[in-house]
Amino acid sequence: MLAEIITIGDEILIGQIVDTNSVFIAKELNKIGVQVYQITSVQDERQHILSALENARNRVDLVLVTGGLGPTKDDITKKTFLEYFEDTLVENPRVLQNIKDIFSKYLQRAPLPLNLEQAMVPSKATVLENPIGTAPGMWMEKDATVFVSMPGVPIEMKQLITNEVLPRVKTKFNRPFIYHKTLLTYGKGESEIQAIIEHWEDALPTTIKLAYLPSLGRVRLRLSSTSRDEVTLKKDVDAQMTLLHGLLQDIAIGYEDQTNIQQQIGAKLQKQFAFLSVVESCTGGAIAKEITALEGASAYYKGGMIPYATQLKIDVLGVDAGLIKQYSVVSLPVVEAMATQSALIFDSDYAIATTGVAGPSKGDALADVGAVCIAIAGPNGVVSEEFNFGNSRERVIKKATNKAFEMLLKEISKI
Amino acid sequence: MLAEIITIGDEILIGQIVDTNSVFIAKELNKIGVQVYQITSVQDERQHILSALENARNRVDLVLVTGGLGPTKDDITKKTFLEYFEDTLVENPRVLQNIKDIFSKYLQRAPLPLNLEQAMVPSKATVLENPIGTAPGMWMEKDATVFVSMPGVPIEMKQLITNEVLPRVKTKFNRPFIYHKTLLTYGKGESEIQAIIEHWEDALPTTIKLAYLPSLGRVRLRLSSTSRDEVTLKKDVDAQMTLLHGLLQDIAIGYEDQTNIQQQIGAKLQKQFAFLSVVESCTGGAIAKEITALEGASAYYKGGMIPYATQLKIDVLGVDAGLIKQYSVVSLPVVEAMATQSALIFDSDYAIATTGVAGPSKGDALADVGAVCIAIAGPNGVVSEEFNFGNSRERVIKKATNKAFEMLLKEISKI
Repeated sequence: MLAEIITIGDEILIGQIVDTNSVFIAKELNKIGVQVYQITSVQDERQHILSALENARNRVDLVLVTGGLGPTKDDITKKTFLEYFEDTLVENPRVLQNIKDIFSKYLQRAPLPLNLEQAMVPSKATVLENPIGTAPGMWMEKDATVFVSMPGVPIEMKQLITNEVLPRVKTKFNRPFIYHKTLLTYGKGESEIQAIIEHWEDALPTTIKLAYLPSLGRVRLRLSSTSRDEVTLKKDVDAQMTLLHGLLQDIAIGYEDQTNIQQQIGAKLQKQFAFLSVVESCTGGAIAKEITALEGASAYYKGGMIPYATQLKIDVLGVDAGLIKQYSVVSLPVVEAMATQSALIFDSDYAIATTGVAGPSKGDALADVGAVCIAIAGPNGVVSEEFNFGNSRERVIKKATNKAFEMLLKEISKI
Repeated sequence: MLAEIITIGDEILIGQIVDTNSVFIAKELNKIGVQVYQITSVQDERQHILSALENARNRVDLVLVTGGLGPTKDDITKKTFLEYFEDTLVENPRVLQNIKDIFSKYLQRAPLPLNLEQAMVPSKATVLENPIGTAPGMWMEKDATVFVSMPGVPIEMKQLITNEVLPRVKTKFNRPFIYHKTLLTYGKGESEIQAIIEHWEDALPTTIKLAYLPSLGRVRLRLSSTSRDEVTLKKDVDAQMTLLHGLLQDIAIGYEDQTNIQQQIGAKLQKQFAFLSVVESCTGGAIAKEITALEGASAYYKGGMIPYATQLKIDVLGVDAGLIKQYSVVSLPVVEAMATQSALIFDSDYAIATTGVAGPSKGDALADVGAVCIAIAGPNGVVSEEFNFGNSRERVIKKATNKAFEMLLKEISKI
């Protein structure tokens, strides 16, 4: 059972918007056992849409099309569907009523002829009701393939997928179960991991697929499988995941969609009735932002400081100016003093401190671009480490952020 | 001159990640006159990749492929390219040296055989150097079509596009100019707008394309055109945009920005030789993170504080405890005091302060979930405003961050 998603609209092809609709659709289809074989983004152009539809028909059982259903002249999906299915338009009274209701209830004005035209639908289509928008969805069939057309407005597309499309797909198609489980690891690269798990990977049943997803100091390992038998499917994948987890227990921090590292840190701090503060120079707020993105962070997070300018590290944070002069602002003694001062000033049990050169130019520091010092102050004293995270500003900040959380989790776990 | 982007990897097709790579590539290609005809996301599967390459060859002049170049077994792009181009592998000494350098400089360990294998490249390929990663890019040609393969890691892909791919595309292909201009409107739906601009739209030259991009109370109107003559192209589109703007002057709020608001703020602060500091409670570092994401932020950004716990607003920031008691921590008098104290402590000309309830639960504040107070201190004194940004934590933080920058820009622009 294969599906293809076709998004229609130049805005994706000129890079004006990010295609988040396909992410939602792909996730929802996966949950009910439908594999997305391809995602295709095409221009608002008749011939291009026609050939995309025909190519998809040859590849898959279900084609989900978003976009191009608005009332204006640049929206040509309905017209093109008419041509592809050799069909004509008929007025749908329920859609017409819905359009009138939306205008009187939410817009407090009469619909224009343009809006009423949206009640004209292909005669062969099963209309999928869209109570929150004026363009309905359409379900049409050609040979063995189902084509569904939906508006591209995310909230309308989502309600159509959930309430109209998925129930019909479940009834129409006989589907297997699909199961993914993803292990999160920190601190080793994908090639090192492959070397560790090689024997296990070679013995993995061919029905289970392993993917390595590396990203800035973390690697996610995903196992995926498909089967008609849900119980056995989950049992088999879970059993392999247990073996994999065992091989990587030093670097595994949990499963995706369960908890991320910030959540683990939060839970452990709360268990210890401990508080955290953060002093960020080169990471400039990126660590604080991750912590406070979680609900309830105030139960274990006091706050922190961003002494971006060197003088502030002395004047406000209270780092000894002599220390900075002797060792330079990007150094282990300075970052350790920053962490200690942070715990003191913000009255916290743990503190993270960062100082470094995010680049791409050197600024007033002596250290190389990419050099970052990170310290963690805690009940057992201060630990610190120096890194070089390369010469891309974005990456230096991200890697330093990830590393700081990794070091903090390690310290918290010692208690 | 048409291009196609092919992304390889199941993670997009199962909805595990959002495809932001294509957005970047499409934008960059547009800037140099290359139109993206289609974006195709395919599975990590040999036959599927082969047919995607062949289909693209029949459609376009340039095919940009991302993903599947890692060292592990699930990465099959290089192998599949070999098959498609009927080629064999040769070792590239420069790539080999780069791999060794990366391992000794950043990873402080010896590369594994798996890593060294990444120096094996197709003999017919022009190697595109990737100094920040171990997988190089590859430029290969078949008949009149160019194929470029790049790693899917965004930061590596970006540097390859910028430094290696675009310069070669500019030399190899004779390209027209592409120009887009987008008008932002607020308060009318797309059908109402079409009714207003109908006569103008009907008279629009066929060389200029109009698109309506509606989104929650806002409609963006994009004009796009392509020509060999850059001067006439811009003149013609700008002239039509002026007409359109005139028809919609009641609801038009400006053009979609070329530079982002943080860049505008940074440039204006530097012109005034002024410095900024930021004190964030409910935004928790999100504002600071945006500021320091820009290179050279230290020229106008002093730093700031995140007094997440109420007590820190008193003890460290120096807000009067009586003020908090009288008005509560989420109030205009308190946020104004926070901004004033920030400018004082951090010795800055401007200061942003935020305090609010990001939610979804209320915490220790009296205010409603979503309530946010923002103040800007500047040479003209302090301004402040109270908002309610709803009950989604992520949206509250994001909206408060955007609003703070908007308020700051307004204050800076008064000088």
